[in-house]
Amino acid sequence: MVQGEIKLLGTWPSPSVIRVKMILDQKGLSYEYIEQDILNKSELLLKHNPIYKKVPVLIHGDRDICESLVILQYIDDNWPKTGPRVLPVDPYERAIARFWAGYIDDKLLSSFVGILKSTTEEAKAEKIADTHAALELLEGAFKKCSAGKDFFGGDIIGYLDVTLGSCLAWIKATERISGAKLLDETKVPLLMEWVKRFLATDCAKNTLPDVVRVEQYGRELQVTRWNVVSAK
Amino acid sequence: MVQGEIKLLGTWPSPSVIRVKMILDQKGLSYEYIEQDILNKSELLLKHNPIYKKVPVLIHGDRDICESLVILQYIDDNWPKTGPRVLPVDPYERAIARFWAGYIDDKLLSSFVGILKSTTEEAKAEKIADTHAALELLEGAFKKCSAGKDFFGGDIIGYLDVTLGSCLAWIKATERISGAKLLDETKVPLLMEWVKRFLATDCAKNTLPDVVRVEQYGRELQVTRWNVVSAK
Repeated sequence: MVQGEIKLLGTWPSPSVIRVKMILDQKGLSYEYIEQDILNKSELLLKHNPIYKKVPVLIHGDRDICESLVILQYIDDNWPKTGPRVLPVDPYERAIARFWAGYIDDKLLSSFVGILKSTTEEAKAEKIADTHAALELLEGAFKKCSAGKDFFGGDIIGYLDVTLGSCLAWIKATERISGAKLLDETKVPLLMEWVKRFLATDCAKNTLPDVVRVEQYGRELQVTRWNVVSAK
Repeated sequence: MVQGEIKLLGTWPSPSVIRVKMILDQKGLSYEYIEQDILNKSELLLKHNPIYKKVPVLIHGDRDICESLVILQYIDDNWPKTGPRVLPVDPYERAIARFWAGYIDDKLLSSFVGILKSTTEEAKAEKIADTHAALELLEGAFKKCSAGKDFFGGDIIGYLDVTLGSCLAWIKATERISGAKLLDETKVPLLMEWVKRFLATDCAKNTLPDVVRVEQYGRELQVTRWNVVSAK
C-alpha cells in the first residue's frame, strides 16, 4: 500500500467534492484541501486530471484518483479498516447502492440543476416534475436500502447517504431560487426524515456549505453562465 | 448468499449486454439468456428494471441487478472465487479500471455512435475526431493498466477488457458504414495488438456478434431511428 499524504482538489459548492469530504471526514482521514478556480484551471488540476480537467481529484501519494464515485470506492478499498465501511459488504446491497448513486448523478442532479438553467416557465415546470419524480423513486430506494434503519447505509452514513446528502445544499438553494417546493413531506416523508437525521450529523455539519451562499452562487451562475434573464 | 438460477435480459447487439455475457462466460456461470424487443418492451423487462426500462438486467434468484457496470461488479462481488476476478484486487488498480470503464461509456461510445447518427459531413468529421482522441487516450490507459502484459486486466481478461471489448463489433461496423478508419495501427499500435489478442479469446468468440450483422442493424437504425438520409 502506498503511504503518503492525501490532498483533495475541489471547489466549495460542488456536490461531487462535498461527498468526498464527507467520506474522508467519516473515515477520520486527514487531508489537505486545495480550492480550485473553475474558470482558471490550475496547472495542478490539469496535471492531476488531464482527461476531464475537473474536480474532485484525490491525490494520494503518487496516485491520482478522479471522478467522485470512483474516489469514494477507492477510499473504501484502500482503508477498509479505518472508520466505517463506505459501501455495504453484501454483494447485492453494494449493487443497489451503486445503482442508485448512478441514478442520483444521471437523473436527480440534472433535474434540479435543470430548474435553475431553465429559460422558460414550461421548461422549468418540466424539470420540477422530473425532480419530484426522481425524489419519489429515491423515497422507495430509501425504504428498501435502509430496511427501517436511519440511513441508506443502515445505522451509519455510507456511499448512498453522501452521494445524495452532498446535493442537499443545492436542492435547498434551488427551492429558494425557483420558489418550487422540492423536498415535500407529503410526497417523500421517509426521505424528509432522512434529511433531518443526515443534516444533524457531524459529517454533514462539517462539510455542507451554507445554503444562502449556494443560493447566491446559483443566482450568479444563472446570470453569468446560463443566460437565465428572468432570475429573481 | 442467495441461491437461484441466473437469467439475463438483453438485446443481441448491445455492448452493455455483451460485456455481461463475456464475464458470465469468463466466470463459467451458466445462465438463461432472454432476448428482448427494444421496440416493444416486455412485461418481464418492465417488472425487473422499472427505473430505466432497459437492458441488460441480471436476474439472480429474487434479485434484479441493472446497469452493465453495476452487474459486472455484482458478479465479481458475489462469485469472487468462481473463475478469475473481474476487477483487479489492488485498490488503485480498481480505481483506474473504474475510471476508464466510465470513460468508455461516457465518451467513446457516444463518439462512435455519434458518427452513425451524424446528418452532416461536418458533424461526422467531428465525431470521427472525437473517436480517435478517445482511442488514443485508451492507448495510454492500456500501456499503464496492462504494464506490459496482454490485457488491461494483466494476464487475463477483466473489467476494462470486456467494457471496451464489448464495443468492438460496433466500432468495426461503424468503420464499414462510415468509411472512416477508427482502429488505426499508426495511432494506437498497442490497442491494435490488444484487439487481436482479445478477438482470439474464447470469451470474445462466444459472445461478440458478427460484424456484418451489426453493420446491417446500424444501417437500419440510421434510416428508421436516426434520420440519416445519406447513409450508403
